Formats: sequence, structure tokens, C-alpha cells
Amino acid sequence: MKCSVIKIPAGAPHDMSGLKASAEEGLFRPEEVVAVLGKTEGNGCVNDFTRGYAVMALKDFFAGAVKGGAADISYVMSGGTEGVLSPHFTVISRSGQAGLASERERDQDQSQDQEQGLITGGPKSLAIGVARTRDFLPEELGRLSQVDAVAEAVARAVRDAGITSLQDVHFVQIKCPLLTAEQIYDAHSRQVSLVTEDTYKSMGYSRGASALGAAAALGEVERSALREEEIGVNWDKFSRVASTSAGSELACCEVIVFGNSQSAEGQYHIDHAVMQDAIDGAALQGLLDRYPGEELVQVLAKAEADPDGVIRGRRHIMLDDSDINHTRHARAVVGGVLAYVGGDPMIYVSGGGEHQGPKGGGPVAAVFRRR
Amino acid sequence: MKCSVIKIPAGAPHDMSGLKASAEEGLFRPEEVVAVLGKTEGNGCVNDFTRGYAVMALKDFFAGAVKGGAADISYVMSGGTEGVLSPHFTVISRSGQAGLASERERDQDQSQDQEQGLITGGPKSLAIGVARTRDFLPEELGRLSQVDAVAEAVARAVRDAGITSLQDVHFVQIKCPLLTAEQIYDAHSRQVSLVTEDTYKSMGYSRGASALGAAAALGEVERSALREEEIGVNWDKFSRVASTSAGSELACCEVIVFGNSQSAEGQYHIDHAVMQDAIDGAALQGLLDRYPGEELVQVLAKAEADPDGVIRGRRHIMLDDSDINHTRHARAVVGGVLAYVGGDPMIYVSGGGEHQGPKGGGPVAAVFRRR
Amino acid sequence: MKCSVIKIPAGAPHDMSGLKASAEEGLFRPEEVVAVLGKTEGNGCVNDFTRGYAVMALKDFFAGAVKGGAADISYVMSGGTEGVLSPHFTVISRSGQAGLASERERDQDQSQDQEQGLITGGPKSLAIGVARTRDFLPEELGRLSQVDAVAEAVARAVRDAGITSLQDVHFVQIKCPLLTAEQIYDAHSRQVSLVTEDTYKSMGYSRGASALGAAAALGEVERSALREEEIGVNWDKFSRVASTSAGSELACCEVIVFGNSQSAEGQYHIDHAVMQDAIDGAALQGLLDRYPGEELVQVLAKAEADPDGVIRGRRHIMLDDSDINHTRHARAVVGGVLAYVGGDPMIYVSGGGEHQGPKGGGPVAAVFRRR
Amino acid sequence: MKCSVIKIPAGAPHDMSGLKASAEEGLFRPEEVVAVLGKTEGNGCVNDFTRGYAVMALKDFFAGAVKGGAADISYVMSGGTEGVLSPHFTVISRSGQAGLASERERDQDQSQDQEQGLITGGPKSLAIGVARTRDFLPEELGRLSQVDAVAEAVARAVRDAGITSLQDVHFVQIKCPLLTAEQIYDAHSRQVSLVTEDTYKSMGYSRGASALGAAAALGEVERSALREEEIGVNWDKFSRVASTSAGSELACCEVIVFGNSQSAEGQYHIDHAVMQDAIDGAALQGLLDRYPGEELVQVLAKAEADPDGVIRGRRHIMLDDSDINHTRHARAVVGGVLAYVGGDPMIYVSGGGEHQGPKGGGPVAAVFRRR
Repeated sequence: MKCSVIKIPAGAPHDMSGLKASAEEGLFRPEEVVAVLGKTEGNGCVNDFTRGYAVMALKDFFAGAVKGGAADISYVMSGGTEGVLSPHFTVISRSGQAGLASERERDQDQSQDQEQGLITGGPKSLAIGVARTRDFLPEELGRLSQVDAVAEAVARAVRDAGITSLQDVHFVQIKCPLLTAEQIYDAHSRQVSLVTEDTYKSMGYSRGASALGAAAALGEVERSALREEEIGVNWDKFSRVASTSAGSELACCEVIVFGNSQSAEGQYHIDHAVMQDAIDGAALQGLLDRYPGEELVQVLAKAEADPDGVIRGRRHIMLDDSDINHTRHARAVVGGVLAYVGGDPMIYVSGGGEHQGPKGGGPVAAVFRRR
Repeated sequence: MKCSVIKIPAGAPHDMSGLKASAEEGLFRPEEVVAVLGKTEGNGCVNDFTRGYAVMALKDFFAGAVKGGAADISYVMSGGTEGVLSPHFTVISRSGQAGLASERERDQDQSQDQEQGLITGGPKSLAIGVARTRDFLPEELGRLSQVDAVAEAVARAVRDAGITSLQDVHFVQIKCPLLTAEQIYDAHSRQVSLVTEDTYKSMGYSRGASALGAAAALGEVERSALREEEIGVNWDKFSRVASTSAGSELACCEVIVFGNSQSAEGQYHIDHAVMQDAIDGAALQGLLDRYPGEELVQVLAKAEADPDGVIRGRRHIMLDDSDINHTRHARAVVGGVLAYVGGDPMIYVSGGGEHQGPKGGGPVAAVFRRR
Repeated sequence: MKCSVIKIPAGAPHDMSGLKASAEEGLFRPEEVVAVLGKTEGNGCVNDFTRGYAVMALKDFFAGAVKGGAADISYVMSGGTEGVLSPHFTVISRSGQAGLASERERDQDQSQDQEQGLITGGPKSLAIGVARTRDFLPEELGRLSQVDAVAEAVARAVRDAGITSLQDVHFVQIKCPLLTAEQIYDAHSRQVSLVTEDTYKSMGYSRGASALGAAAALGEVERSALREEEIGVNWDKFSRVASTSAGSELACCEVIVFGNSQSAEGQYHIDHAVMQDAIDGAALQGLLDRYPGEELVQVLAKAEADPDGVIRGRRHIMLDDSDINHTRHARAVVGGVLAYVGGDPMIYVSGGGEHQGPKGGGPVAAVFRRR
Repeated sequence: MKCSVIKIPAGAPHDMSGLKASAEEGLFRPEEVVAVLGKTEGNGCVNDFTRGYAVMALKDFFAGAVKGGAADISYVMSGGTEGVLSPHFTVISRSGQAGLASERERDQDQSQDQEQGLITGGPKSLAIGVARTRDFLPEELGRLSQVDAVAEAVARAVRDAGITSLQDVHFVQIKCPLLTAEQIYDAHSRQVSLVTEDTYKSMGYSRGASALGAAAALGEVERSALREEEIGVNWDKFSRVASTSAGSELACCEVIVFGNSQSAEGQYHIDHAVMQDAIDGAALQGLLDRYPGEELVQVLAKAEADPDGVIRGRRHIMLDDSDINHTRHARAVVGGVLAYVGGDPMIYVSGGGEHQGPKGGGPVAAVFRRR
């Protein structure tokens, strides 16, 4: 397997001109694309239709670019490019057997790759795996049934990536659903209870349950000790690598696992750190210092307003602001800090870090290319 | 003269409990206060009443705390604590002759101080000067008559601070008026033309004209070569130390000059740099590196969305966002970057950097205390 | 007792010029004022400081205007003047014994007034009563202890108004507290559970519990059958006259009862109807038709986005909008509809109609003056 | 010619399920559709991508539904469904010769139709005409060259509708472009001057110039007396039937003329009135009273915040609100008022009424169906 990550500016949610040009220049091959992560310029909240708009345009683009269609691409659009964050698409490609073989064959291939990897003894390279849960009912969101389905899908994606040690998993991106007013209305009519009746709040529950699913799969949280009431409440339980993002454009969860593997080859690799709060630029600085001389290809991070209303002992107003949602504030801050440290504002920073990193902080991963 | 700067958290715009406690602990003496800079938690735009609310509460507080009233304090409230920025008051005190003497006497005192200063040869210390323009008519805002009145007031404030070299001026804070819908309506009835009919846009013109006034006074821009049409248009003309902030709670401009002077004494001093763009944290880092071992007391900075819509070659969406004004985006970013570099989110970052620093960037000043 | 209602435009939250002029013209006597209802131009949500700003200015004004101070005025500021709603103050005055006598004396007076009223047989006139609950702990908000304290205060205010039949109560305005991020943080440290951890959502719970308190006091809801879980959930239980408004500027509930009483005199009287949804202008039209030739002095109404997301069978987007809170949408709509019907946009429309009128609708009261 | 108007609810900007069902039920024939007017649930301002998203979905839908494609449909999406306004599509169909014939043939047909019309003497019926201008350069927007191009297109659309008297034109819907930050940047690099550098403000200029183009074509404004400086300034010049709407999804203007014609047949007809201000529900009431017993099919109206900041002598805050754009406030109000009068919130109310109706007011048209 050989994986690559490139990022492409977007002039609007549906702007495919950059993708088209990059494909024509041979920077990526459409038929090798397994996932596209996008930052689109909506509000990143309930009524952000830029995510769906981008997905519609991307599907059209790849349908045209790949002979016979491109059915299996995961589209993970994260809305909200507050501050200096620059709208763009991150195109993730994978070539080699893993992406093409059936799961059984792939498992065999992977163990062969692995053996070969051990033999060659080269450095581990970037390995990508994808998986998808079944569609959820509204009443499952933010509850243990979502946690379990996500955990199972994350485990599947890790295998799909050919990653053999959980220490080699550095970023788990999950796109998850939310509750709309219509779904809430429907649930009422079916007399089922929902985790919340607030559309905006449902995003947090769905993100939180997804993150705990990843944490369970990766052994960061003990599933058997996890109770439903802890979702969205007990911030001491979290994943150090999960990044989850809610949107109304899907009913299942889409999982993309980023890690390193001996069975993968190529110049790309990934590493991660954990930001302790929204201004912990030192976390990314530490990663950069670890790989001097390498090219920083992309930064992937979560942003969160500290739920206690305090950062470094100072009161922040993000949670009390009824004009701008706190996720928007937090993305602007983390985007600015990481853009300064990394020197580029075209990075992937998504909001709402429930159970993703410690309270008020979040995971930050960096994809590098060896020169 | 001896000047000091302390900062005090505010739980709300009208929260005087911190000020009261600090005064009681002897951290400042109310009768020595010449200015209060506040960051209040409104939107920082036209309909931000947190600025006026804070001023009303501050006037009440100082009227009660100072025998015989406290008429001469400059209140400069800057709205907008997006992201991690923490609402607070910066209390600026001055003791000694300069603040008490008549202007003529002060001028004499200053030249004596200066001579003595040259004799003693000690380090320059923080010196503060204040001044105020006359009230403006709506039709003067954003035009050369505002520029000239501000230039005259800045020159007066520099003298008031006992600063003898313009190189020693490191921050010029100006609070200026804006146009409200009512004033625009009135102007219509008087058949006079205004620089803009848009209340929000009037803030930018007023900030820009004020900054050019400071630039003219400090020799950064040649007044005789400045044409009215350049205000809000020609970003090549700017001040490296002006920070201007518009609000509906005043009709004149209030000027506070921060600099260093041989005739001042005490542990405080100030320095400045210029941010080249909104993520230029290196500017503040450079200042910190210049004074190792000293305490960073306060950071004063301007935030601006690059008017070309591009930062480090990447498109930003701040100017196209009709939900959140670009000044709010920019403050969140600059606040986050400087909070990371300085380690404290309770800093003074104000928005709207027209003619304050280069296009998309802005001045950043740091007040230090020698240990 | 003789009560009057006048409304006075405000150029800003702290603008007392209209009040000053009206008092000087003799339109009201400051020492007779028992309550001021204000519509201020903030967002009407958590971080709306225009309410507190107005109260600070009003207290200053009345302290100066009334010899010996004006301690007992209820200030009920409702934020949010979306659309055509025009910021203003409604000044409610009361002269005669009720406002001055101790409760025991007043009770005696009232029964005498009543007897006299029955004897004179004149028309009932506007009668106002006020009361206040104790301060609440954060954990009481949105729960039965708030309901009970409010119910007791409403009963007290009805007696204070000299109203003897509950049919004569036409509007019960209640100002209630909300939860701020700081209070939530404090509650965490004290290990107590809150009804919600969301500041914005706390407004709804507090409004709902207050309305159910009024409903209990007025016999609209049977207190013994009311369970805590129904607050904010079971919309079938509601008051037809309660109007509640949450703000961060108080910790207790302030109650103002509007009704008609035989023991009151004067030209003013009040009546009410119930809007079935946000565009039920016919409710106010019906009231106007009932009193042809009388002057419509003021309209008092509640606005609410239908919680099912549907109005007249059509989907509305108010609940899914993450840029503008649904209370702001709803006020704009109801304000527009009632301004059309009544012919004046300077009316009191407040948002968040939980348990105030039927789901999606709300009470509307009209104060008339006989010519 | 036979024209019809039906409206179809949309669950989201890209929701085609209603259109699909209606087409299958035979409520409209896709191949006869000449225009679709949509209300989509974005902010209706610069960064509203719901308009483009809906157009992308509509093009896909009609491409699939019409054999050989459906190239000539005008898609006019108006963003902003504040308050009770309900997202939907208005599908406008036309059958018969006019839509098919070449312009020359159509002119002949029309004069024949006319003669026949005069002979048959039946009632006039709804007639629709469409036209499109060339693409504009950024520097043309808001200037006389836009006015002239629109005037020419409106005249063409009137002929296309077979309308022979300008008195029979009752609504002229125009979709026009705006300036984005990128276009402004480009213009800078080409050294051309633009009518404004503010993206949001450019919407108003483009709407205003388009409306004056319609006014010129319809003889409401004398073109030879119109000066460029009057655009966006002199509100005394306006059209009583133009409704213009700006968006970033097109570079030309699309014109749809609605009127009545003797040469058209069918049950539909249209009439209009002019709202004098945002709460002039009486304008629509007057139209309803004129056609008792007929079905009100659709209401088409413009909403505007009075530019003087005053309505019915009362101050409104719409122009001073930096959190919510005034067009959003105004749509919420007019939508509420007209929904009350007409009894249905699923109507077409678009914002920004520059030169469309008198200052603060706007045109309102109603499509009826005879029973």
C-alpha cells in the first residue's frame, strides 16, 4: 500500500477547479482516492449546507473523473473556516492491494505485507483505512449503540489500513449525523425519546459518542466501564486521536483511520500530539521539532471552547455568546494558533471536541513528507 | 513622573468588584488613574452597548473612590472578546508633577526632568500622556478635519507624557466616534454629505482618520501630501504605533500616548513591533526575546482581516461572511496567536486596523516590568 | 387606587431623555411609578447586557427624580427589538392607598374599596400589583421550587393589585434569572446538579417554571398534578396570561400583575386574548373590535417559534438556525404582525413562550384608555 | 399561451422530493417549466451558498426529467427564510407557441393572438416572459451599464410574455450578481474602480441598478433623466413592480416578467399593490378583497428596512444591528405580516428593496386562480 495526502484550495464549496487542475497535473489519480476531507465555509453548525453542497459537487466530479464511477470515497466535510482558516479539500489516495482486495484477501495480503515489511525493515509510512457504520435511528444518536457501532467500524478501518499496532494510529476522523427539527418531530410522533431535543446540542452528543467509540476501539477507554450517562458529561474519558464532526448530510458514521505501517511505503508519514487547551501551539511545535527538514503537508486538529468557561485561569465568553456559537469561536482561535506555528492557514481544524482530547484541548496530528 | 499599568479581570461589563478589591489591596490608587482601557464582551461593532455600560459603571466607581470626583480619566473601551480574549480593565496610573501641573509648568518641568535624566543616565521608564479633541460633527468623521484634530491632540498627549523623542512613542490608543442611524438621518435633514451612510462602515473611516492623525503627528505620514480620498483606501500610509477603536459612546477622540521617557521613573517600560499579518506571532516573540527575565505585564495589539481576502497566499472568508463581521474574526485570531506567544489570554486586542500597521497587519506593543 | 400606563421611546438602552421630558411634562409622577417594562435593543439572549445597562440608568434616573430614593420599582427589561419593534420603556404608575399601605392595611382598604366598588357599580379600571420572590440558587432554576416561589409571589401581587377575581387578571409579567457559565462552573464545584448545563437553554427552563408558577397561582394548572419533568416538556400545561422573560441581571423573580378591579379608578383598563400561533394577528384584532373608539395604549405579547418546527402546516427554520436564535426570529414575526394590526411598532413583545399560551402561540394583552 | 404557478415545499435547499412527487402527480410538466423561483434557507447575504446548492440540484433534476435536457429554465433563488417564511420552490410553467417560436414568429403570433384576444374578449390570463442579459464585468455592477442591459432584457421579456400594455405587467423578478472579495481583488489588480469595495453593500447596488432598469423599461423612471449617482441614493425613483435579488451564483441578470395578457389563457391571473412600509399588510388585504372567492396561489413581495431608521414615526434598530443584517430583519417582518394576511407562510418574500417600491416599502403581487 502507498498512501498520499495533498491539499487543494477551494474558491467555494462547489469549486472543483482546483481538483480538476491537480488531477490533470497528475498530483493525484482520481481512481486511487479513498477519502476527501474538506473544510467548507459554512457556519459548521446545524444549518450549514456548504457541507452537503461540496459533497454533491465532489460526487459529480469523481463520477466524471473515474471510469465506471467512484462509489467508495469517504467524503468528510467539516464546516467552519473562521478567522484565517482557508477553505480547501484534503485528498487522500491509496494505491496497492489493500484498497482493492476483498476484506479476506486484504487480511492475507496485509500479513504478507507485514512480513515483507519486517524483512525490509524500512521506516513506517502513512497508511489509511476507511469504514462506515450502518445508518442510525434518531434515538440511537449520542447513546451507547452509536458508541458500539463506531468502535466496530474503527477496528475495521484499522485493519483496512494494515496497521498492526494501535500505537501507530495517529488520527481517526469520523463524520457523524445530527438531529434536525424534522427528525425530532418524527421521533415525537413515534413516541421515542431522544438524547436531546435541541438540534445544535445533538451535534455535540453525536460527536461525543463517536469519539468514545474510537477510544473504545483503541483501548483508550474501557468499554465495559463506560455508562451512557457519561456521554457528553464525563470529560475525563477521551480519545487522544479521534476527531469527529457532525453534519446533516449523512445518517451513518464514516471513519477514516490515519496511521503508519510497515506494510505501507512512500514518503508520507503521520504523528500526533495532544493540545492541552485552545492556545497550546507548543503541541504542534513539538511535532515539528521532531522531524526537522521534513515538509509539513497537513495539520489535522480539533478545537474546543473549554467547557468550564476558563482558559489559563482567565474567563472566556465563548459559552455565553448567543450570537456566535462557541465552536466557531474555538475554530478561529485554534486555526490562528496552528497557522502561526505551522506557517500555513490552509489546515484542517474542526470544532466540537467532546471526548476528543482533554477538556478544552484536543488532538493535533501532522502529516509529513520526507525529502 | 511615575506610571504603572495593571490589569484586572471583569466578570461583566459593569463588574467593578475586581477594581474595588485591587484598590483596597493598594495595587493602584484611584486618584492617580489617568486612563482605563477595557476589553468588554460585546460585538465590538455598531450596536455594542457593553462599552457604554462599562464606562457608566467606571464613572460611578471612580466618582465614589476619589474624593471630589475623578473628572479627567480617559475611558477607552474596546468591544469584542472573541475566542480566548478575556474581558478585563487595564488601569493606567500616573503620579508626580506631569499629571498635576498646568501645561506651561509641565513643559518647564519636563525640560528640567530631561536635564536631570541626562545627568542621572538611568533607563527610560513608562510615560503616559492623555489628550482629547473637541466633539466632531457627523460630517467631519473620516475626513481631514478629523485627521487634523487628532494630530493636534496626539502632539499634546506626547508633551503631556514628557516624551521628548518621537522614537520613544510605542503605542497611541485613540477612542473615536462612529455614525449611528440617527446621526445619518439628522445629517440628511441638514443636507450635509457624510463619508458613508453605513453605520458599520463609519467605524472604519473614523478609525482610519484617527490613525492617520497619529501618523501625521509622529512623522510617519507627511500631512501635506495626504489627500482626503486616501482615507480608508491607500493602505500604504499608516502608523506603526496607532491603535484606534470606534464607539457610539463619545463624540470626540480620546488619545492616550504610551512611551518611555528619561523623565519618568519606575519599573515599567514599553516597546513595540509591527505584525505583518494576523498570524505574525513572531512579532511579539521578538519583543519577548529582547527583554529576557522581565515580566510581561500587558500586550496591546490591533487585529485586522487582510483587505485583499488573502493571507500567506491563502484565501480567507472573513470579508465575505455576512453572519460574523470581519473585525470579530480577526480579533479571535490575533487574540489566540498572541495569547499563545505571551501565555495569557487577558490582553488588549482591538479590531479594525485601518491605517494602523501595514495592510492586514498591525502594531503590537508590550508593557514590561523590570524585576 | 388609580393606575396608568404610558410608553416612552428610548434612543439607546441608557437613554433617559424621554423619561425626563415626560416627567417634566407631567405625563407621569416618578414617585408613583411601581414598574418599568422595557424593550431594549440587545439580542435578548444570554449575553444581552442592554437589560442591565438600562436598569442601571433607570435606577440612577429615579434615584434623582424621587426625593428619598425610589427603592420599590420593578424593572423588567426584555431584550430584543428585532424587525420593526422599537426600543422603549413602559412606565406603570399607581397612586392611592394600595401602593402606600402596609399589607394588612391594604387588605382592609381593598375590602372597603371593593364594597364601595360594588356600591358605585362603575366600570372596572386597570389595577397593578407587584411582588418579588427570594433569590434562587442555580440548582433551583427550572424546577418545582422555582414554580412554587413564583406561584406564591403571583398570589401576593394579585392581592397587592386589589383584584378579587382571577378572571380579572389579564397579564402577569415575570422577570426571572438564567444560568451563566460562571454559575454552572460554581455549581460543578459544589457538586450540585443543574436542570441544564447550557446557558441559553437555561433561559427557557427559567421562563417555563415561572409561567407554570403563574398558572398554578391562577388556577390554570393544578399544582398538585404538576411534575418536575413536565417543565419545558409538556406544552399542554400553560398559562393564558403569563409572560416571562429571563435575564442575567437578577437572581430572584419580579412579578407584575395587570388586571382590572372595581376598587381601581381611572380611564385605563386591560383585556387579553391568546394567539394560537406566531401569525395569529386575529387575536389582537378581536380585542380591538371589542372596544371601538378607545385608544390602544400598549400591546403586551409573547413570541415563540413553534417547537414542532411547523406553522400552519409549513416547515419553519427557526429552530435549525445556528446563526440567529429562534427567539429572535419569533419576536421579529410577532412584532411585525401585531404592529400591523395595532398600527404601532412600539409595543412590548418578548420572546420565549414556554408554558405561556399554547405551543407556538402566546398571550396578547392590550391596555386601552377610554376617551 | 397558457401559464401556471404552483408552489412546492422543500425540506432543504437540495430537496427535490417534492418536485419529483408533484411532477409524477401531473401537477406540472417538467418540459413546460420556464422558471423556478426558490426561497432557500441561507442568510440571503454574500456567503449564502444555499442558492447555488438549490440551483445545482434543480439543474440535475430537470436534466433528468426532461428528454434532451432543459437548458432554458431561469432559476431565481432568493436566500433567507427568516421567521415563519417556509423554504419552497415556485414552479412557473408555460405551454403554447410563445415559448417555442422564434422571436420573429412570436411577434407575429402575438399580434394574431392579440387580434383574436380582442375578438374573443375573454378575461386576461397570467402570461410569463423570460430574458437574460449578457454577463457583467465587476466594474459594471451598480452602474448605468447594468441599468441599460437590464432595461433591454425586461423589454424583451415583456414581448416574450405576449404582454401588449405595460399596465399589465405586475411583477418583474430579476436575479442579479454581486461582488465577492475575489472579484474585488481582481479588479484591484486590473486597476479598475468599483461602485463599492464592500461585498455585502455590492448586493444593494446590483439590486438597485436592476430595479431602475426595470423602471426604465416600464416607463416608471425616465432613463434620459437618470444619473449614475442616483443609484442607491435617490429613493424617489423606483419601480412599483420590480423585485430584484442578488447572488454569487450568476454573472448576468435573469429576468422573469409576470403579467396578464389577452393572448394567454387559463385560470391564473396576477395583480399587484405597493406596500408603503414593512407593516403595510393592508396592501395585500386590498388585493384579496378585489378577488373574493378566488384562490390565492402565491404572494411575491419585497422587504426592506426603512433607510431612515424610522417606521411609523418609531425608531427601528435594523440598520444599527451588526449581528443580523437588516435584510434578514426585514424579511422576517414582511414575511410575518403577509403570512397573517394571506394565511400561508410559504410565500416568496425577498429582501433588499432598493428602488423597488417607495423607501421602506415595496411591491407585493398576488397570483390568483379563478375557481
